[in-house]
Amino acid sequence: MSRKFRVGILGATGTVGQRFVQLLENHPQFEITALAASDRSQGKTYAEACSWKLSGDIPEGVREIEVCAPHAPLDCDVVFSSLPGDIARATEEEFVKAGYPVISNSSAFRMDEDVPLLIPEVNHEHLALLEIQRKRLGDNGGLVVTNPNCSAIGVVIPLAPLQAAFGIEAVIITTMQAISGAGYPGVPSLDITDNVFPYIGGEEEKVEAETRKLLGRFANGGVENAAFQVSAQCNRVNVTDGHTAAVRVKLKSKARPDEVAEVMRTFTSLPQLLGLYTAPAQPIIVRTEQDRPQPRLDRDAGRGMSVTVGRIQTDNVFDIKFISLSHNTVRGAAGAAVLNAELLVAKEIIK
Amino acid sequence: MSRKFRVGILGATGTVGQRFVQLLENHPQFEITALAASDRSQGKTYAEACSWKLSGDIPEGVREIEVCAPHAPLDCDVVFSSLPGDIARATEEEFVKAGYPVISNSSAFRMDEDVPLLIPEVNHEHLALLEIQRKRLGDNGGLVVTNPNCSAIGVVIPLAPLQAAFGIEAVIITTMQAISGAGYPGVPSLDITDNVFPYIGGEEEKVEAETRKLLGRFANGGVENAAFQVSAQCNRVNVTDGHTAAVRVKLKSKARPDEVAEVMRTFTSLPQLLGLYTAPAQPIIVRTEQDRPQPRLDRDAGRGMSVTVGRIQTDNVFDIKFISLSHNTVRGAAGAAVLNAELLVAKEIIK
Amino acid sequence: MSRKFRVGILGATGTVGQRFVQLLENHPQFEITALAASDRSQGKTYAEACSWKLSGDIPEGVREIEVCAPHAPLDCDVVFSSLPGDIARATEEEFVKAGYPVISNSSAFRMDEDVPLLIPEVNHEHLALLEIQRKRLGDNGGLVVTNPNCSAIGVVIPLAPLQAAFGIEAVIITTMQAISGAGYPGVPSLDITDNVFPYIGGEEEKVEAETRKLLGRFANGGVENAAFQVSAQCNRVNVTDGHTAAVRVKLKSKARPDEVAEVMRTFTSLPQLLGLYTAPAQPIIVRTEQDRPQPRLDRDAGRGMSVTVGRIQTDNVFDIKFISLSHNTVRGAAGAAVLNAELLVAKEIIK
Amino acid sequence: MSRKFRVGILGATGTVGQRFVQLLENHPQFEITALAASDRSQGKTYAEACSWKLSGDIPEGVREIEVCAPHAPLDCDVVFSSLPGDIARATEEEFVKAGYPVISNSSAFRMDEDVPLLIPEVNHEHLALLEIQRKRLGDNGGLVVTNPNCSAIGVVIPLAPLQAAFGIEAVIITTMQAISGAGYPGVPSLDITDNVFPYIGGEEEKVEAETRKLLGRFANGGVENAAFQVSAQCNRVNVTDGHTAAVRVKLKSKARPDEVAEVMRTFTSLPQLLGLYTAPAQPIIVRTEQDRPQPRLDRDAGRGMSVTVGRIQTDNVFDIKFISLSHNTVRGAAGAAVLNAELLVAKEIIK
Repeated sequence: MSRKFRVGILGATGTVGQRFVQLLENHPQFEITALAASDRSQGKTYAEACSWKLSGDIPEGVREIEVCAPHAPLDCDVVFSSLPGDIARATEEEFVKAGYPVISNSSAFRMDEDVPLLIPEVNHEHLALLEIQRKRLGDNGGLVVTNPNCSAIGVVIPLAPLQAAFGIEAVIITTMQAISGAGYPGVPSLDITDNVFPYIGGEEEKVEAETRKLLGRFANGGVENAAFQVSAQCNRVNVTDGHTAAVRVKLKSKARPDEVAEVMRTFTSLPQLLGLYTAPAQPIIVRTEQDRPQPRLDRDAGRGMSVTVGRIQTDNVFDIKFISLSHNTVRGAAGAAVLNAELLVAKEIIK
Repeated sequence: MSRKFRVGILGATGTVGQRFVQLLENHPQFEITALAASDRSQGKTYAEACSWKLSGDIPEGVREIEVCAPHAPLDCDVVFSSLPGDIARATEEEFVKAGYPVISNSSAFRMDEDVPLLIPEVNHEHLALLEIQRKRLGDNGGLVVTNPNCSAIGVVIPLAPLQAAFGIEAVIITTMQAISGAGYPGVPSLDITDNVFPYIGGEEEKVEAETRKLLGRFANGGVENAAFQVSAQCNRVNVTDGHTAAVRVKLKSKARPDEVAEVMRTFTSLPQLLGLYTAPAQPIIVRTEQDRPQPRLDRDAGRGMSVTVGRIQTDNVFDIKFISLSHNTVRGAAGAAVLNAELLVAKEIIK
Repeated sequence: MSRKFRVGILGATGTVGQRFVQLLENHPQFEITALAASDRSQGKTYAEACSWKLSGDIPEGVREIEVCAPHAPLDCDVVFSSLPGDIARATEEEFVKAGYPVISNSSAFRMDEDVPLLIPEVNHEHLALLEIQRKRLGDNGGLVVTNPNCSAIGVVIPLAPLQAAFGIEAVIITTMQAISGAGYPGVPSLDITDNVFPYIGGEEEKVEAETRKLLGRFANGGVENAAFQVSAQCNRVNVTDGHTAAVRVKLKSKARPDEVAEVMRTFTSLPQLLGLYTAPAQPIIVRTEQDRPQPRLDRDAGRGMSVTVGRIQTDNVFDIKFISLSHNTVRGAAGAAVLNAELLVAKEIIK
Repeated sequence: MSRKFRVGILGATGTVGQRFVQLLENHPQFEITALAASDRSQGKTYAEACSWKLSGDIPEGVREIEVCAPHAPLDCDVVFSSLPGDIARATEEEFVKAGYPVISNSSAFRMDEDVPLLIPEVNHEHLALLEIQRKRLGDNGGLVVTNPNCSAIGVVIPLAPLQAAFGIEAVIITTMQAISGAGYPGVPSLDITDNVFPYIGGEEEKVEAETRKLLGRFANGGVENAAFQVSAQCNRVNVTDGHTAAVRVKLKSKARPDEVAEVMRTFTSLPQLLGLYTAPAQPIIVRTEQDRPQPRLDRDAGRGMSVTVGRIQTDNVFDIKFISLSHNTVRGAAGAAVLNAELLVAKEIIK
């Protein structure tokens, strides 16, 4: 490739927007040319507008970019969106109609019938939905691809090889989620210091629905949801980054913990084959110590893109239980979207 | 009763030992006369020996008691034990053989066939085991009654009315446990600050086994474990006091969330009937706010003796899911033992 | 007194407002009859309007009170105010002009020349300012008395006996403040989890100015600020309740740590003499353990109204250094105001 | 240089030992050839012996090294020591006598008259002490160089340019220190969750004494302590990494905050001139936002080797106050030692 794709970020000053900025610094295929955010930020430079909450400084290359309104046209080839749910639908639609490929981290379009809800390692064949989408939208280059909810990603990646190897009959998920998932100001400290907060609005429904779409099969011009049931209980805990999930799986063909570990450990997929820039060498890292994974130690594995699984054991009620850990704003949000975009570039869907 | 029973505490300087001391201050039926702890503490006054970790000061009445070795004879009528597992069995047995009623918070004897694993609201009829125990031990007044693991208690209390009303087919428990459960120094801060620690040695096994004994039926001279399976995943989170559990229950007779709430809310049992001093008016407090229970707000409900349940919902995989919260060193340890002792007094088993 | 004073609370749904409600439950002299808060809450019952963030439940007696607008007239004899700074001045003035005694926790009037900035143990003679205030406001019963900033209180109380015994030449204060001081939602968790936040808007200026007024002398119809300089650095740390302050004091007459401890330990004042309901037996508790005070262990001392001081040592640069700890929403806010009101009742200023 | 120096690490399994291992991975001048630790670890591979507490995995190159006893001879050219204080003196002395250069992070020899207490940016001329040391020890290549206490380093680096530009008359330091400074298991979580712990054994004395030696002048064959007094109050807060210090400085020549900021911002020294591998481009990063520095955001600045200073203001009592932040196990421990070693290599003291 002789040039970089020019990227515009919607919601650029938010927690996930900042991760986009961080992940795209020095990216070989993308460079940031436009940053859009809410009214309050518009007209300021990014450095002025953004209350930077990540370790390290705002990358030099974007400090002086003037924050603009999230409206088309925008000076870019591709749009990454991490807009809040309430305004995402209308705004992203505006960009799609204007001919931009929109790589969205928002929940607005995830469950739409012709929108791929994409984890490149898990369901890249769902990209076939883009043909149906194109029929609806016309052929001006506009399209929308979404990545899942931050909690769904970290569980679905380890479920994928289990589904392939053994079949899945039911999944029970209990999450212990990091505060960064709620953005900034996000979770009030009085709700989480010395506390567990047992409610995250809409989260359980998203995890339950998205998991079934993600692990569904593309057939007959659409995605058929996976046939099994999913139960989620979602809790917030006092962790900065890294969602932990306690998972039970009922399998179609019984499997021992060591067999489960083996299919997870050896799991690779298209992004690894294609050598996508953001793809981790190992999508799933299986740890055998009895006290892993842990958010503080494992969230940055594979530069935040690997899911770490541990404590794989036989379950008394279902067949298998394990603990899954993933970085919620990298693999669970900005990194997920960047990997999605890389796959679209590799497949020349973005060109 | 014209006099107070004189109480000796084994493991008096530990986290649970301190709770015993706190809960027995001004107790109408018990007064502390002996405090026993490990070698390092012996010979010092309790105020010198004890690194007090509870809010407020060491009660005046015990500050000057000299800490002695945990060996019989001890200057007391009843022994409360919160000894560490490794020395509990031999030491408690020594006291039982010497004729003391031992009210134990330790795990040593919990699963022994003729030892009641007692939650007065749940299975007071298990006290019939004491007759079998007496046959083994002789009739010198020595006996041992245990209370369950801190995580098991907080889940079993809400399960009890469900079992009675609807029957239980399976239970899946995922805990988020407080650091005080590990004693002092206990959990290293580097393991829990900005972290979830997914392993507590022996905990999952205890929760799984004890739940079935607790909800078992006394019949034919023994306790028959409840027939259903239990799955536990136990995690430590950065909370000082209060264990949270995410629970799914498969019921024999289906029930709606409001029916489940109703049988929990109206559940009372023998301790409430007898008006035992430490018994909460409501063993189970059902909250209807979508973000409750929370450890910081609910752990002290019913002076730490009520279990608070919330987020009762239909579950996609099982029938019902809910969140349960209980104070791990009060209802889950010292308060549990004190309530057990109060029941034994009321039934004139201790006299 | 044959009847209770009827109390209206301004800002009733906030963190400090909730403490007012909690502290006035079962108060022998006051009963809550009116609860006022911002637009969003008006017309709802208090139980509906209030996101209760304290341990335990909303007291029964106030659950059904309808939250009204913070405007006079209000169905009460006395007004307690914990309004946010920006609206406190106009609103409190409205009530004063309408003839209500206003006991304010807000910063609006604290530094006004004829407004007592009152800590009953420290400067009750400043109440003489009310005569000057009355001249300005007229004689309709309206008056305003304020309590200091939550950080100033916890340091000024231990400084008071030092000033009396040894004289003070300079004070250097470094605070580590609890999150509850910022109200709700208040401090975003991303700013304080695994972090120290070194900035609290306006706090250093308040501590520096208020300390000098508090320890000033009433003379010639006004309060002359104390002559010494005060330096404050104010930081937020990840603690729910309890402000810790590291203090150095340069004394006029040198004193040893044991002498400093003695004058603090034996310090009592008018509230103790009068037996005011909320007054702690010991305004200052001096601890001699090398690792005290600590927020978790000491904030509730004296039902949250005692200041705990420890680590009193000779300082290399100044004369004395020590650590001070006080409950920021009890002694530092709502409890301070209630004690002020009790003093006004005892002195028949409120009648 | 054609080869790497072979390094042995004493205390290799501890928190600082792990940082040594992490920092020396891929170091251009050093490679780890020996890892020594306490009895319990000996004979195991490093991967088996070490409970790794840093983000990421144990570097491949050391996983299989067998942990040996901390005794000479050791298969290495240079020894890095992070032994606990109680055994450091005898063990380090053994290595020095056996002819090894010992780069020590321990406190044992820091205040010895002929031992450099070295921060390369601050007092590299103190290395002249090694000549005196050599006279005592003989000429077999054995020598010991120490780095300061983790809290002293973070304050002394910003003080150094102030001393040079304006002169210092007194310094008052209040620290809020991270838990990793206490090693593992280190600080019990019950002491620090929802808490400030106001005591760190020996810390205040070390900060007070070391600061004066560090900023002292080499003259007449020894280091003359700086003439000013230092006061330290040291507290532990719930932060994983990164010590925060609130500092007041009384200057000989008055200076405005902007002048102080300027001399700090432009401060560089010998390590920057020599381009030492671990030396940060900017020893001091001055931030102008009112809410910086913060541990979570700034501890990794300059790969953990920069000190970040902010909130530089005029002080009411002294002249200047500011907040300083440094990574306690990188700049404050392992990184400090590695930088010391790099300077010794550059000066051909190690060769």
